[in-house]
Amino acid sequence: MNDALDSLRWTEDGLIPVIAQDAESGEVLMFAWMNREALAETVARGEAVYYSRSRGRLWPKGESSGHVQKVRELRVDCDRDVLLLKVEQIGGIACHTGRRSCFYTRFEGDAWHDVDPVLKDPKDIYGETS
Amino acid sequence: MNDALDSLRWTEDGLIPVIAQDAESGEVLMFAWMNREALAETVARGEAVYYSRSRGRLWPKGESSGHVQKVRELRVDCDRDVLLLKVEQIGGIACHTGRRSCFYTRFEGDAWHDVDPVLKDPKDIYGETS
Repeated sequence: MNDALDSLRWTEDGLIPVIAQDAESGEVLMFAWMNREALAETVARGEAVYYSRSRGRLWPKGESSGHVQKVRELRVDCDRDVLLLKVEQIGGIACHTGRRSCFYTRFEGDAWHDVDPVLKDPKDIYGETS
Repeated sequence: MNDALDSLRWTEDGLIPVIAQDAESGEVLMFAWMNREALAETVARGEAVYYSRSRGRLWPKGESSGHVQKVRELRVDCDRDVLLLKVEQIGGIACHTGRRSCFYTRFEGDAWHDVDPVLKDPKDIYGETS
């Protein structure tokens, strides 16, 4: 595993961007980051573990929502500096807004429009915590 | 257009990451960057114009290869800091290696393996320039 990790081009901060894609539908679900430990954990568990830059720690996807991402395939691009993770999205919801994908906002005319439905109220996903 | 650009979260360098996806097959083709000018040009032309960080200038995709990307849809994620560009890939080749997608390398066992075929020799795409 160390050789496979060493062959990647990490940022100065020791991170690599990750595109998460639904393995069945091909829908792009979200974009996040991993550090070496997150990627090693992802491979070991068979479930996506990202690195949260805002929280400064590992972020096992679905830890509070239950919306775990089962890894079906892992790829890297020709420059070895971007990962593509094909996943089975448990619960069918990747976005913290309760939508299937984080890319629910489309450019139309001259502006951005939210075009995809909220499938589950975030309050029902994460509970009333504030 | 300025309002739409202002509403995005650009990096300190004035860039935003872009995932290019085949609009028909859903295949993720490549990952690149845009600055404000590149995104405005992309919208105006209806063809992908990236910002090349290595060359420090606008990079109209396909300028030397002819492998232009016609824009079918433009989306942004919930954090407004990643773009998803759904495109028609002219020539069926997005990667400078002559492959359909830049993500042709799969993690299997404990190592990376190139699994997708070269569709056209890069020498025949770009000519013998060195």
